[in-house]
Amino acid sequence: MKIGICGATGAVGKEVIDVLFKRGFKVDELNLYASERSAGKVNKTPFGDVTLKEFSLDEAARNKIVFFCVSGEFSLQYGRDLAARGVIVIDNSSAFRMDLDVPLIVPEINPEMVHGHNLIANPNCTTAILAVALYPIYLHFGLKKVIVSTYQATSGAGQPAMDELMEQSRVVLDGGAPTATEFAYPIPFNLIPQIDKFQENGYTKEEMKVAWETRKIFGNENLAISCTAVRIPTLRAHSESVTIETERPVTVSAVKELLLKAPGVRLVDDIVSSPAKYPMPLTASGQYDVEVGRIRQNLVFGEHGLDFFVCGDQLLKGAALNAVQIAELVI
Amino acid sequence: MKIGICGATGAVGKEVIDVLFKRGFKVDELNLYASERSAGKVNKTPFGDVTLKEFSLDEAARNKIVFFCVSGEFSLQYGRDLAARGVIVIDNSSAFRMDLDVPLIVPEINPEMVHGHNLIANPNCTTAILAVALYPIYLHFGLKKVIVSTYQATSGAGQPAMDELMEQSRVVLDGGAPTATEFAYPIPFNLIPQIDKFQENGYTKEEMKVAWETRKIFGNENLAISCTAVRIPTLRAHSESVTIETERPVTVSAVKELLLKAPGVRLVDDIVSSPAKYPMPLTASGQYDVEVGRIRQNLVFGEHGLDFFVCGDQLLKGAALNAVQIAELVI
Repeated sequence: MKIGICGATGAVGKEVIDVLFKRGFKVDELNLYASERSAGKVNKTPFGDVTLKEFSLDEAARNKIVFFCVSGEFSLQYGRDLAARGVIVIDNSSAFRMDLDVPLIVPEINPEMVHGHNLIANPNCTTAILAVALYPIYLHFGLKKVIVSTYQATSGAGQPAMDELMEQSRVVLDGGAPTATEFAYPIPFNLIPQIDKFQENGYTKEEMKVAWETRKIFGNENLAISCTAVRIPTLRAHSESVTIETERPVTVSAVKELLLKAPGVRLVDDIVSSPAKYPMPLTASGQYDVEVGRIRQNLVFGEHGLDFFVCGDQLLKGAALNAVQIAELVI
Repeated sequence: MKIGICGATGAVGKEVIDVLFKRGFKVDELNLYASERSAGKVNKTPFGDVTLKEFSLDEAARNKIVFFCVSGEFSLQYGRDLAARGVIVIDNSSAFRMDLDVPLIVPEINPEMVHGHNLIANPNCTTAILAVALYPIYLHFGLKKVIVSTYQATSGAGQPAMDELMEQSRVVLDGGAPTATEFAYPIPFNLIPQIDKFQENGYTKEEMKVAWETRKIFGNENLAISCTAVRIPTLRAHSESVTIETERPVTVSAVKELLLKAPGVRLVDDIVSSPAKYPMPLTASGQYDVEVGRIRQNLVFGEHGLDFFVCGDQLLKGAALNAVQIAELVI
C-alpha cells in the first residue's frame, strides 16, 4: 500500500512512521513530504532510507492513505481536495475536527463513524488520552460533569519545544537566565497555565477542544466539561487529574474492573505496595496504552463521584498511534 | 524580643529568619536550634552570625516565641511542654493542626482565633495558599464544592528534595538515568501524583489536609473539598487549579474586584496582553502575595461556578511568611 506523510520530520510525523513499522502496517511505498527547504534530503526510517519530496496534490494523490502531521493551515489548504481525489486523509490538526461532515475518531470509542469518509480527523492529544479512559465509565455509569486539570508535556508544542526545555534547563542549572522562543515564558522549572489562544469565555482553545471534541466523540452534546490546560516541564506524556459526577452511583471496584477490560487502557493503581504505583510520564512515555490510576470515590459528589489520574504518551495515543489505528480501521 | 527557631538550617527555618529580618520584626536575641550534629556551627544570618545550639526545653524556654520548623515527631515531643512554660510556639508541622484546642491560623482569615493560645499551628502549605485566595469568595458568595488539582514544588519536601531535582535534572540532560532518594520516583521531567501517605479512602494525607484544614480555618465543617496533590519538577512555588460551586450566583468581574482588595492576594489575570499574564512559579517565587488568575465562569456549574488558578511561594505564604505573620499577630 502506498502511504504518504506530510510533516514527516516533525515530532508526530516521525512517530507515525515508527508506529506504522512497529504495528506491521503493510507499506509498499512510503512517501514523505516536507517543506521545499527539506525536499531532496534523505530521511532514515525503519522502512529504509527515504528521500523527502515536496508536496503537491498530484504527487500525494498517488497514495492510498496520507497522514497530515502539519499545521491546520496546510490541512485547510489541501485536506478536502486530496480526499476528493479518493485518498484517505487522516488529519492530525484541528482544522476539520468540528466539521459536521468529518468524523472525529478514537478507534476504541466510535470506530463505526469512519465508514464512507475519506477525510478523517484525529483528536486533540489531551482529548484522546482522556476519552479512552473516560468512555467505559461514561457507558456504564453515565456522566453529568467532568472537571479536568492537565499536566501537559512540551512535545505537544513540537520537537523545537522539547529541545527548548532541555537546552534552557541546562541554562538554569548553570546559573543563567533562561529564554523562551517556543513558549511565551521560560518553561524549565516553571509551568505555564495557557495552551493555545484565549477564547471569549476566558478558556483557552486547548481547554475548549477537550470539551468540544469529547462531546463529539461520545456523541453527547450536553456533556458538561470544564478543563484547565497547563504546560509543565516534562517531555512527552500528558497527565490529567479528573473529577467526575456520574448519573448512576459508582464504586471504585466496579470502575477498576471496567478499566481492566477496557481497550487502550492500562490500570496502574496500587496504593498498597511500596513504592505505590500510579500513572506517571516516566512509565507512560513510549507506551501505547493510557495509564489510569488514583481512582477514588470523591468527596464532592459522594456515591456519584469519582476522582482519577490519567497519563498517556502525547505523541502516541495523543497523536501518531491514534492516527495509525484509524488507518487500520479504514483498510 | 528573644526569638528561637528549631530547624534553623532547613528550607523553612532559613526563610523564617529572612522574613523576620525583612519585615523588621523586633529580634533582640536570635536562638537557632539544630540537631546535635550541627550544634556549635556558625550560621550566617541577616541578624549577624549565630552559633547553632542544641535544643532543650530549659534553653528554649528563655524565648518569647519559638518557631518549630521541624518534623511532626519533634513537635509532638516538645510543643505542648514548651507552650506550657509560657513560650509562644508556632508550629509548622501537622502535629497539632487538627487538635481542637490548637488554633490553625491564616492571619488574613481567622486572626481572632490566636487569642489566649500559646501553641499555634501553621497550616499546610497548599492549604494556606488556597485559603487566602478562596476566603474572599467564600465570604461573599458562599461555597458548596471545591475541586483542586495541585502542581507542587519540590521545596515542599525540603532542601534535599530541591537539590535532588537540580542534580538529577543534570544527570538526565547528560544522558544518564536519574535516581531518587528524596522521592519515590525520579522527579526530573516527570511528575508524581502522590504526596504523603495514602489514607483508607484512597486520598493521600496531603490531599486530606487541604480538606480538613480549609474546613477548620473557614470554620465550616461541611465544606465539600476534593484535592488531587501532584509533585512536579519545579523549585519553590505551588500552583493549584481550582473549580468551585458557589451558593449564590457569581460573576468573574465581581470576583476580580473582590480579589483586588483582598489581603495577601495579587490579581494576575490579563488574557488580552501579549504575552498574557497569569500566575506562574516564575513570578510567584520569592513573593509574599499569592497570585490568582485565569478566573472564568465555568462550564459545569454555570452561574454558580468559577474556575481559577493560584500560585504562591511554598516557603513563604505556604510556611515562613504565614508563621511570622502569626508572630506579628501575637505581639
